[in-house]
Amino acid sequence: KYLQFFYDAQFGYTGRNTGSGVNAEDDTNEFNFRRNRIGFIGTYNEKLSFYVQTEYIEDKNVNPLYVDISDDDSKDFYLLDAQLRYTPFENVDLIAGKFKHSLTRENLEGCFNPLTLDRSFFVYAPFKTSRDKGVGARAEFFDNMVQVRGEIQEGRTGDAADGSPDPGSNLRYTGRMHLSLLDKETGYGYKGTYFGKMKVLTVGASYQYEPDAVYGDVANLADKKDYAAYSYDIFGEFPTAAGTFTLSAAYLNVSFDDAYKGTNPDANSYGQNGERDGYYVKAGYMLPFNVGPGQVQFFGRYDKFDFAKLNGYYDNSVDFIAGGVNYYIDEDKIKLTAQYSKTNFDKEVGQDTNMQDFDTFELYMQVRF
Amino acid sequence: KYLQFFYDAQFGYTGRNTGSGVNAEDDTNEFNFRRNRIGFIGTYNEKLSFYVQTEYIEDKNVNPLYVDISDDDSKDFYLLDAQLRYTPFENVDLIAGKFKHSLTRENLEGCFNPLTLDRSFFVYAPFKTSRDKGVGARAEFFDNMVQVRGEIQEGRTGDAADGSPDPGSNLRYTGRMHLSLLDKETGYGYKGTYFGKMKVLTVGASYQYEPDAVYGDVANLADKKDYAAYSYDIFGEFPTAAGTFTLSAAYLNVSFDDAYKGTNPDANSYGQNGERDGYYVKAGYMLPFNVGPGQVQFFGRYDKFDFAKLNGYYDNSVDFIAGGVNYYIDEDKIKLTAQYSKTNFDKEVGQDTNMQDFDTFELYMQVRF
Amino acid sequence: KYLQFFYDAQFGYTGRNTGSGVNAEDDTNEFNFRRNRIGFIGTYNEKLSFYVQTEYIEDKNVNPLYVDISDDDSKDFYLLDAQLRYTPFENVDLIAGKFKHSLTRENLEGCFNPLTLDRSFFVYAPFKTSRDKGVGARAEFFDNMVQVRGEIQEGRTGDAADGSPDPGSNLRYTGRMHLSLLDKETGYGYKGTYFGKMKVLTVGASYQYEPDAVYGDVANLADKKDYAAYSYDIFGEFPTAAGTFTLSAAYLNVSFDDAYKGTNPDANSYGQNGERDGYYVKAGYMLPFNVGPGQVQFFGRYDKFDFAKLNGYYDNSVDFIAGGVNYYIDEDKIKLTAQYSKTNFDKEVGQDTNMQDFDTFELYMQVRF
Repeated sequence: KYLQFFYDAQFGYTGRNTGSGVNAEDDTNEFNFRRNRIGFIGTYNEKLSFYVQTEYIEDKNVNPLYVDISDDDSKDFYLLDAQLRYTPFENVDLIAGKFKHSLTRENLEGCFNPLTLDRSFFVYAPFKTSRDKGVGARAEFFDNMVQVRGEIQEGRTGDAADGSPDPGSNLRYTGRMHLSLLDKETGYGYKGTYFGKMKVLTVGASYQYEPDAVYGDVANLADKKDYAAYSYDIFGEFPTAAGTFTLSAAYLNVSFDDAYKGTNPDANSYGQNGERDGYYVKAGYMLPFNVGPGQVQFFGRYDKFDFAKLNGYYDNSVDFIAGGVNYYIDEDKIKLTAQYSKTNFDKEVGQDTNMQDFDTFELYMQVRF
Repeated sequence: KYLQFFYDAQFGYTGRNTGSGVNAEDDTNEFNFRRNRIGFIGTYNEKLSFYVQTEYIEDKNVNPLYVDISDDDSKDFYLLDAQLRYTPFENVDLIAGKFKHSLTRENLEGCFNPLTLDRSFFVYAPFKTSRDKGVGARAEFFDNMVQVRGEIQEGRTGDAADGSPDPGSNLRYTGRMHLSLLDKETGYGYKGTYFGKMKVLTVGASYQYEPDAVYGDVANLADKKDYAAYSYDIFGEFPTAAGTFTLSAAYLNVSFDDAYKGTNPDANSYGQNGERDGYYVKAGYMLPFNVGPGQVQFFGRYDKFDFAKLNGYYDNSVDFIAGGVNYYIDEDKIKLTAQYSKTNFDKEVGQDTNMQDFDTFELYMQVRF
Repeated sequence: KYLQFFYDAQFGYTGRNTGSGVNAEDDTNEFNFRRNRIGFIGTYNEKLSFYVQTEYIEDKNVNPLYVDISDDDSKDFYLLDAQLRYTPFENVDLIAGKFKHSLTRENLEGCFNPLTLDRSFFVYAPFKTSRDKGVGARAEFFDNMVQVRGEIQEGRTGDAADGSPDPGSNLRYTGRMHLSLLDKETGYGYKGTYFGKMKVLTVGASYQYEPDAVYGDVANLADKKDYAAYSYDIFGEFPTAAGTFTLSAAYLNVSFDDAYKGTNPDANSYGQNGERDGYYVKAGYMLPFNVGPGQVQFFGRYDKFDFAKLNGYYDNSVDFIAGGVNYYIDEDKIKLTAQYSKTNFDKEVGQDTNMQDFDTFELYMQVRF
């Protein structure tokens, strides 16, 4: 019975070529934490443990799709995860508390060991984007080749204040299965890279569902629509004498059953986290030798997502392309990442630079204790 | 000189038979933390120590008397307790910081060892319901048979923003005395059950006062009224060969000197935490043998409180009746509680299900590290 | 590689002779934390470390220049510091994260070892008053006699919501140099007193700059003005057989290039943290013998600052005079401070007691773990 504390931080510089100045056409410069987490793991006995971590980010200016020019005075820690885990048998976990749902592989990839600077901006679930409160179970079979997992969580919990009432206090159900064919990926989370230490080939599929999640006609509290989403994904990492090659891709489809076509649709049913489909591919190459005390990994990624409605346009889409380099000392304990990316909209909106193509440069350091 | 960390959590499911859907007449389902606390005890030397704990609850939907259908985006840790304790002599404590006031026994019963799922919803003080900032003292006499304690704390600290100005920056005074007749209850907190390890019979009385706490006529800043409250309580626990029997009851009277009858009374002077009187009785029976690895305890409680004004009705009253079962492993370290309760209003308000009788089922687990 | 936790608190009573009651002419009484910090120092290896600390203050009523009569319901921990420090060579530090800027010596004096109850209320920088996010470097030369330090931090980060848009996303630059002539003051922070253990004489100068920080004409987004500030300071402490004498003074000049004279100036360019100049002097005398288990130190301070515009008056000024006594046990580990102060405005505003002279009495205890 003991507690083990940790501290994980990502701090650095973000520069975007628009967003500031008189017409928001000047550069925006920001120093900020990307992640800043204090947490602890408690082990009660070999079957019962818990995991708690907090997050603290304040006054973030440069966001994935827009620059926030207002000072945000609310400064608060929040609880990212708080899971009680019970392991009655080997390879079986029961979880209760606040923890990640299983809709996409990238959501389950550790935030401190992605392949690129970060996961896709476009694979988040509606309402509870990454974590949610509820219960879950996970089991591995056939020498850990097959993993099956599922969660019953809150999902949507009402939002009358935004003028978008919740049709019912329904729970959200998520299921996921993967096949891990070479070295086995097991446990609660994935990694975006294994630093050349494992030969991995994993394919997975997920499904998420909440009945009666939105109204197509908010004004009349009518035309209830279900939420459903599914995703397929593949991840491979192959260490060779010429270096380690990593390749991963996923497809995601999020549906509110065309609620956005309703008379007066719930605003949650469209936009960045609403109805959409798309995919990402990402690739990495790690040099076979150390450079100084650490490992060098080049990476690139491409995301393409089609949105039911984005920035006021129906059927808008976003292309995101990024390339960069990771430098690892002691694997993910100390890490420097530089990334350059372009975010391009299919349909750009006149004067607002938050709805026009933009470029971003990011330079981040990561330290884990 | 050392720090000792702890983590205490209660997580589970709450179901209420109203509150959601088109007319708020459908069931409401919620997974949430009931308590979620990280804290530490610091020992400077044998006379000086401190106790700090934080609380984190986000987006709570099902509340004692209403369902909150809006998403609450404010997510923050807050400081529940932060006490510096100085013990100049044995059985004498001086406390400064933020800590519980002594108005009721149930407020002083540990949140992680109540007899029923939780304390009464109706015994909270106005303004600073459970904890407050200030200084306090506690001493035990006559072989710990008599305990005397008191606090000088902030009490009301102004609230012009709510349109209910504070007549003055007065402090709030609380005094309490108990007689512990069999095995002695000593120290800062009580428990709701001693797991059959102690034979206890304690009677106590408390008084709390703040002069000029509200205006009976807010519009004209006139008709100042004092706040005064008192409570009597009894607690007994009797381990026998046939099991352990627990019985406890308390009476509470909260007065703003009939401020609610004023021309334009301060809204703080009535409602759930305002002028009222009432009582609770609660009883428990713990089986004399273990069931599996743990102890089983059945419990029930009944609360009846008369409110000066509640849900818009003068002289409204609430009956709360609950029954359930606790399962303890390692006393309160691991605990499961199931409780079914009925909340009945004397005067129900037409269409609003938050002002009508409702039933609640709760299933919670508790873990303490 | 280890973590070391600490807890530092200041708790006590503040009484001000105005601010409450019908016309805000009655006394205001408050118990509160002045500082309440949980943090930890992590040592990764001898070159890399970090320092994280949180602050929690809730519902503060008595503020330096006004009484806040509204209840503040936002209760949150925030992150005061989170620095990654890299020490490639002895006497050279590189810092990244959120940490103090170097504009004034008092801002760099530890909050738990000031000479008087606290630092000057009038030496804070605009926008990011004490800490800011960014990168910094510090080096000492000539047997630690000379320290040079500088920061590149965010400075202003936009505030369209307040009706005062940011002319550009520029960074803020700060530089500072000191000469430490007797026993050397080294490292990141200063102290307000060394408890008679060091003989110190240090003089320093700082400069801070951010281009295009405000508009002189907010309505037309025109008349961009730079921010620039500079400060000179001296600190001496002399232990003698007759006791320890401490004397310190600083001058600060903050300029927005007369933006307040503009057609429609940014409200950030004037007021308590805006355009101003002034100075403080402070002195202490510590008895040469212990009184009981601790050390006694008498202190006084005088601040005089001229503001471009304060409380609606152009060219208003504030005199602050304070005297008191510190009692130290185990240096700053346990400390009691009593201080009486007078805050006098050159131009008082009619009925509002927040704009009239007032007196304050403060009695605080401090504990550090």
